[in-house]
Amino acid sequence: MEDTKSYLQAFAKLNTAMREKCPLVHNITNYVTVNDVANATLAIGASPIMADAIEEAANIASISSALVINIGTLNARTVESMIAAGRAANEKNIPIVFDPVGAGASAFRNKTTERLLQELKISILRGNLSEISFIAGVSASTKGVDVSEGDSANDAQAICQKVAKERNCSVVVTGKTDFVSNGLRLAKVDNGVALLSKVTGTGCMTSAITGAYAGASDDMFVAALAGVSSMGIAGEIAFEKSADKGTGSFRVSLIDALSQLQAETILKRAKIR
Amino acid sequence: MEDTKSYLQAFAKLNTAMREKCPLVHNITNYVTVNDVANATLAIGASPIMADAIEEAANIASISSALVINIGTLNARTVESMIAAGRAANEKNIPIVFDPVGAGASAFRNKTTERLLQELKISILRGNLSEISFIAGVSASTKGVDVSEGDSANDAQAICQKVAKERNCSVVVTGKTDFVSNGLRLAKVDNGVALLSKVTGTGCMTSAITGAYAGASDDMFVAALAGVSSMGIAGEIAFEKSADKGTGSFRVSLIDALSQLQAETILKRAKIR
Amino acid sequence: MEDTKSYLQAFAKLNTAMREKCPLVHNITNYVTVNDVANATLAIGASPIMADAIEEAANIASISSALVINIGTLNARTVESMIAAGRAANEKNIPIVFDPVGAGASAFRNKTTERLLQELKISILRGNLSEISFIAGVSASTKGVDVSEGDSANDAQAICQKVAKERNCSVVVTGKTDFVSNGLRLAKVDNGVALLSKVTGTGCMTSAITGAYAGASDDMFVAALAGVSSMGIAGEIAFEKSADKGTGSFRVSLIDALSQLQAETILKRAKIR
Repeated sequence: MEDTKSYLQAFAKLNTAMREKCPLVHNITNYVTVNDVANATLAIGASPIMADAIEEAANIASISSALVINIGTLNARTVESMIAAGRAANEKNIPIVFDPVGAGASAFRNKTTERLLQELKISILRGNLSEISFIAGVSASTKGVDVSEGDSANDAQAICQKVAKERNCSVVVTGKTDFVSNGLRLAKVDNGVALLSKVTGTGCMTSAITGAYAGASDDMFVAALAGVSSMGIAGEIAFEKSADKGTGSFRVSLIDALSQLQAETILKRAKIR
Repeated sequence: MEDTKSYLQAFAKLNTAMREKCPLVHNITNYVTVNDVANATLAIGASPIMADAIEEAANIASISSALVINIGTLNARTVESMIAAGRAANEKNIPIVFDPVGAGASAFRNKTTERLLQELKISILRGNLSEISFIAGVSASTKGVDVSEGDSANDAQAICQKVAKERNCSVVVTGKTDFVSNGLRLAKVDNGVALLSKVTGTGCMTSAITGAYAGASDDMFVAALAGVSSMGIAGEIAFEKSADKGTGSFRVSLIDALSQLQAETILKRAKIR
Repeated sequence: MEDTKSYLQAFAKLNTAMREKCPLVHNITNYVTVNDVANATLAIGASPIMADAIEEAANIASISSALVINIGTLNARTVESMIAAGRAANEKNIPIVFDPVGAGASAFRNKTTERLLQELKISILRGNLSEISFIAGVSASTKGVDVSEGDSANDAQAICQKVAKERNCSVVVTGKTDFVSNGLRLAKVDNGVALLSKVTGTGCMTSAITGAYAGASDDMFVAALAGVSSMGIAGEIAFEKSADKGTGSFRVSLIDALSQLQAETILKRAKIR
């Protein structure tokens, strides 16, 4: 209870501090949602840079405040850049957020996910239950890049904690309830709406704004919590404004809400247990 | 006349069935409109996955319900992935929709278009008149990736039927009137508005939602008809809502309309001859 | 004073002429903002084509009315295509607009920027103060791909003129005030709003619509002026309509405003000194 209250305070405070710092966030991400990732990063108050050429990946990572790696449309070329950027980030203790999009869906994604987890020190790992289940070694039924149904919330909490302990990082499992754990601490976030799954990139954007928070914080657990709850709150606000119009309008309202999200709204709306 | 009525019924029924099935649709597509393609696919009720690495293209295609190949920004690397994914799809009788973006505009596009048609069994081929004319071997005046003016509707019907027979697949030629043929059957669709050509990716989105329908149907002619008419209807609804505001708003309303398109609206609005 | 008035008249006239011509504009650009670039190009009245494969880059450039090169997410493969397309454009006297995104931020970007300027005849160079300062050889403090603060407007004018003379092209330095020079002529543009920097791709879109104007003009100075002022005016209109809603809505209104921008509005709103 005390914890919950302190997390909420820390989250709201971090939002303000991050907007003041405007951290540079290096994204090596997929080309499907990269524009939304950039706009979400700007909206939340940070400055995005996308650079995936091996010739500059390490360079750019080393001048950034955070690195976000997303394997949504990985290929042999960009995987090497992810590794190079990740090593440069690790050398300078720049936090890395890793989004293992579609882990479990192909051998190539599985192998790359494992490689990134082995070769890099990841600060925050964020995925849906199918993806994190794959990393946990739990038999998961990944169906493409969207979460498979039929996995229960109880599993999500246990898997979140297991992976956090085993991989020694903060883990976020997104779903109806989001679970955040660093192995010691655990929080549940009840923000968000189902419609978020009908817009592509809401997961990628969540990882990106988590990177923005990570780039302005020393507490990766709080940054992870802030990222996932920010997207959930923005989703709720967008839903209230535009759900009846359709998913195109909902997506516009989502960016609107992120761009106007500040401590006051966070304190009022965040549902952290 | 009977045919027309039965097509309409089949289209409306397929929309409902597809939304229930939520087929996984694998897209190897261009990076210009890929985000719209993903959001249109989600809006119409299917689940998109983008994967163009040779290491996983066949893998992902083989777990999908349909494959959509779009050469809008093809390169040597992705063409090989198109072939590999296409072969995997063919082996499992997974339908392939092929969008030959800009065929006729460069030797590389021409050669790749011919290669894909030779090496793969395509279920549905969708393009504008310039593109399909190129495939027909009719001298066309492709101007970039947008359709060239001055080609008449009579040509479109003849070319549509010619290519359908020669290539043994369903062919859609989009334009003021859209023509759909599988060599035996022919339908004309009068839905749509000219403003659709002022938003990038409306052709790509048409191919993508055609893939969604194909992934939930055994009748490729009906799936092709459903795809092109769905986009036309959504365009009309978006036009009514937002044309006076400008093309940015029109595009948002287009996704809105796709996300709310259901059998009832289809039965009311589809203009199939 | 006389000059200013004639520039304004030329700009308004060019807008009309460009919309009538609908020039084909070849973009080799980054995958972050490529969709916005395509939609902005369509909105302003031109026809975009994106093609970055070495197998067709020269081909496509040679059938276009302008080429826009943007190094936002450059890599070894696309840099060669930029060179090949650029040479083909130069051979046919097709104007090239070059946007050196993030010049100064990594050795790879710096080397590529210098190479493109050396090997190609550039008609219009457009960047923010950090980027153009790097090209001027002035010590700049590039922070990622967004402009660094603390550089003064006086510097911008001097640097704009210096680079225009040294590189023998029209140069645009965007900022609170935009500076346009071809070494002989100079104009200052006061259109625009700060919120434009909170949406990704507004710089890229400015370069793209500059390419559209360049593709319909013999006067690169006027084309450069038209491009930067068009985006500024559209930004103001979008701000009036949507700034209070958030950056998602602002971005939609920006494309709306571009799509409705015509001579009358230009004559009323352009602030050229």
